[in-house]
Amino acid sequence: MVNESSSKILTSTNMNPRVRKAEYAVRGELAIKSEKLKADLAHGVSLPFKRIVPCNIGNPQILDQKPITFFRQVTSLVEYPDLLKDENAEITSKLYPSDAIARAKLLTKNVGSVGAYSHSQGIPHIRENVAKFIAERDGYPADPSMIYLTQGASAGVQLTLQMIVEHSNVGIMIPIPQYPLYTATLAILDAKPVPYYLDESKGWGLTVEELQRSYDEAAKNGVETRALVIINPGNPTGQCLTEENMREIIEFSKKNRVVLLADEVYQTNIYQPDQRPFHSFKEVLKSMGPSYEGFELISFHSISKGMVGECGRRGGYFELEGMDKSIIEQIYKVSSIGLCPNVQGQIMVDLMVNPPKKGEPSYAQYQKEYDDIYQSLIKRAKKLENTFNSLEGCTCNPADGAMYLFPQIRLSKNAIAAAKEAGKTPDEFYSMAMLEATGVCVVAGSGFGQVDGTAHFRSTFLPQPELFDDFCGLIKKFHEDFMNKYRD
Amino acid sequence: MVNESSSKILTSTNMNPRVRKAEYAVRGELAIKSEKLKADLAHGVSLPFKRIVPCNIGNPQILDQKPITFFRQVTSLVEYPDLLKDENAEITSKLYPSDAIARAKLLTKNVGSVGAYSHSQGIPHIRENVAKFIAERDGYPADPSMIYLTQGASAGVQLTLQMIVEHSNVGIMIPIPQYPLYTATLAILDAKPVPYYLDESKGWGLTVEELQRSYDEAAKNGVETRALVIINPGNPTGQCLTEENMREIIEFSKKNRVVLLADEVYQTNIYQPDQRPFHSFKEVLKSMGPSYEGFELISFHSISKGMVGECGRRGGYFELEGMDKSIIEQIYKVSSIGLCPNVQGQIMVDLMVNPPKKGEPSYAQYQKEYDDIYQSLIKRAKKLENTFNSLEGCTCNPADGAMYLFPQIRLSKNAIAAAKEAGKTPDEFYSMAMLEATGVCVVAGSGFGQVDGTAHFRSTFLPQPELFDDFCGLIKKFHEDFMNKYRD
Repeated sequence: MVNESSSKILTSTNMNPRVRKAEYAVRGELAIKSEKLKADLAHGVSLPFKRIVPCNIGNPQILDQKPITFFRQVTSLVEYPDLLKDENAEITSKLYPSDAIARAKLLTKNVGSVGAYSHSQGIPHIRENVAKFIAERDGYPADPSMIYLTQGASAGVQLTLQMIVEHSNVGIMIPIPQYPLYTATLAILDAKPVPYYLDESKGWGLTVEELQRSYDEAAKNGVETRALVIINPGNPTGQCLTEENMREIIEFSKKNRVVLLADEVYQTNIYQPDQRPFHSFKEVLKSMGPSYEGFELISFHSISKGMVGECGRRGGYFELEGMDKSIIEQIYKVSSIGLCPNVQGQIMVDLMVNPPKKGEPSYAQYQKEYDDIYQSLIKRAKKLENTFNSLEGCTCNPADGAMYLFPQIRLSKNAIAAAKEAGKTPDEFYSMAMLEATGVCVVAGSGFGQVDGTAHFRSTFLPQPELFDDFCGLIKKFHEDFMNKYRD
Repeated sequence: MVNESSSKILTSTNMNPRVRKAEYAVRGELAIKSEKLKADLAHGVSLPFKRIVPCNIGNPQILDQKPITFFRQVTSLVEYPDLLKDENAEITSKLYPSDAIARAKLLTKNVGSVGAYSHSQGIPHIRENVAKFIAERDGYPADPSMIYLTQGASAGVQLTLQMIVEHSNVGIMIPIPQYPLYTATLAILDAKPVPYYLDESKGWGLTVEELQRSYDEAAKNGVETRALVIINPGNPTGQCLTEENMREIIEFSKKNRVVLLADEVYQTNIYQPDQRPFHSFKEVLKSMGPSYEGFELISFHSISKGMVGECGRRGGYFELEGMDKSIIEQIYKVSSIGLCPNVQGQIMVDLMVNPPKKGEPSYAQYQKEYDDIYQSLIKRAKKLENTFNSLEGCTCNPADGAMYLFPQIRLSKNAIAAAKEAGKTPDEFYSMAMLEATGVCVVAGSGFGQVDGTAHFRSTFLPQPELFDDFCGLIKKFHEDFMNKYRD
């Protein structure tokens, strides 16, 4: 028998059907097309634009966000510990501030080589610092042995969902719209997504009535719902939950016996800190008193977002609260099969949770860099929101947090018919037209889920400050042209 | 309903049963116990030894193997690109050689920030260098678009096995003894391991007759075998395959229509380079001519092993050969759900496949460091093999390659009875006794699989050269005491 290309052993028809079913729009058709256009531009092909603007993914440093200097000084030193030797002290001190050198020495002492496998759960010294950070953030103690360092929050979400899904009738409640990591992972695990809808007309609000409706409907269909995913601040929707709302969610989880999974990776991307500050679910839970003792909560955080933005490094952690001892042991076992999270990612977690403090040599620079990024994100979020709201047929809720806007676009019958003709949903058709006209790559709303018959897209507001007005102008011009072209 | 600890929502009885079933002995009971003993020592507890010697895992840098200087100079510079600015050139040149600076500039130009998400398949520039490396190694061209960078070889193995397992009756052929990543992953995927046995009496030899027996037996039981895993050089067994043997394996795979998965992470850990040189399956396949065109092969490599030993960084790659286009697209999709392999791991792949060349400033130092590690590994492998073979009732094949020895121990009836009493297999009982008496942590043979009724353990030969005689002495003394204690 010959393995000819027409008779391959492994094909999409006999591969794992759960993997085949999984979809991940953030790096889907539009992103792949944008890579092709980028290559075309590099090869001198003439296109209606000069550059690709990747707004499909929260990847700040690809759009020139400068990393925090102190963080990179420390990571540079731990890579090459010879720099920390006494004989190099004089020259090294000309390139690195004393607190970066001190931190690198402390980390090297506690971590050893960044090239060695670490503890599978993460380096104990770093987990202790994470616990201190959580305690300070929340005002309630945290236990280093309940913290697991991970290769980004995604890896943590995948690992914990994998633990929970006992069989194909297990349901996991997820918001709609949602970050597609969740639906993709549930598809691969052959579990049932149990969707609850965020209310766009109320700033993407989340009500317990809708949670209960969703839970009950799944139960009626024989689905055993075991966990509830909350993304706060929301992705792609950017809303930030009130404390009151969070208490209700915890009550709901307790009453319905679901484990609460709190995706809190955007916890420092908060753009209305006075009206809508961030509260962690851990904090709110602890404030609810002894009757909530033993409540099962898993919270996720990441170095990829916030003002850190070190997503290429793949680092993060999750904290377990109230989990059964047998499950904690199982989580350790699964972590150990992957050996350990990459050590440079772990070190960035240490730096994120323990940045320079007042009085230390790098404090002023750290604070300035942090604030500059923060203020600029607030400004850009508002500017893009205003742009979207100025467009014909387009409405957009403000971003309380995160890195995205998720405007709704109301398209003409002609546009919807043209989309159908092209074999696309209206939002995909619109987003592809935007890419082809402007080089701006967004993600169509159908990749996140949306109310039937509506059309949205998700765009980051990360393009460079100095290019931001041009970017908004490009979208405005495209939208006008598109609306005119397909006017009924 | 109250979430009391006695009535947790998620417990080991209602969790994912496939995850519960998975076992990973390399970081199992012995390793966990060794961590506890290490903590005890740190807290001043008096034990029969002064230090834990972790021989359970191939983790060279935790046993003080110094990383290759050039590699770390480059990774240090890309972390902190301010060092590459003209204004810092004079000081930087006092700490870094010119070729490290040039390489860091080239990488920074092609990679951008190490903190940005990269292409999900891996950075194109680095994949091109991997392709050149493979082409030079094998004498046959390689295609960068068929190379996927990964977070260590483990992640690549998990990803590809996940693609292949269509349903719970799919079988994957694995060697016995095997590296437990394979059985753990197959348990989680709910697939059938199809074991073939390596022949200990013939230097852990692999015969096609045994492959066929294994395949046929699985077929008789209704198992659909879809892939064959070969670990070469072997783990835990250290054998290195001859070209002739590899040709037979390829013929077998073609005849029986199984995808060949070649775990070649130990390809530079070759200790008898004249008698038993390494050949890649890609090379052997290509040498077999046009009738093997389209043969489906996936090969894995890693930065964790060899003289690089940068395992904590989690980097590696796999190369696809002859795979169906639809599968290549699916592999890209799955990679994109995890966003990208960590960028520092990718950079180390670049350095591994493209080290300093003759005539470049860092060449002499690189070559010396590389050779020192290599020669020392050869010496230590031989010394430990001789130690094992000098022990009563113990025999050990030499290591042609890899980082491990896998001796067989023949224990007395008394020892076997004592093990049974303790609820352990004889090899687990022996290994735990070794840990408790000496602080040396090995992995019991049952974690890898072994012929029924035999007992083995796996030990690395990575303890520091200056401590190696003591280490061998410790084992010798322990073994004598153990044999005397349990003599029939």
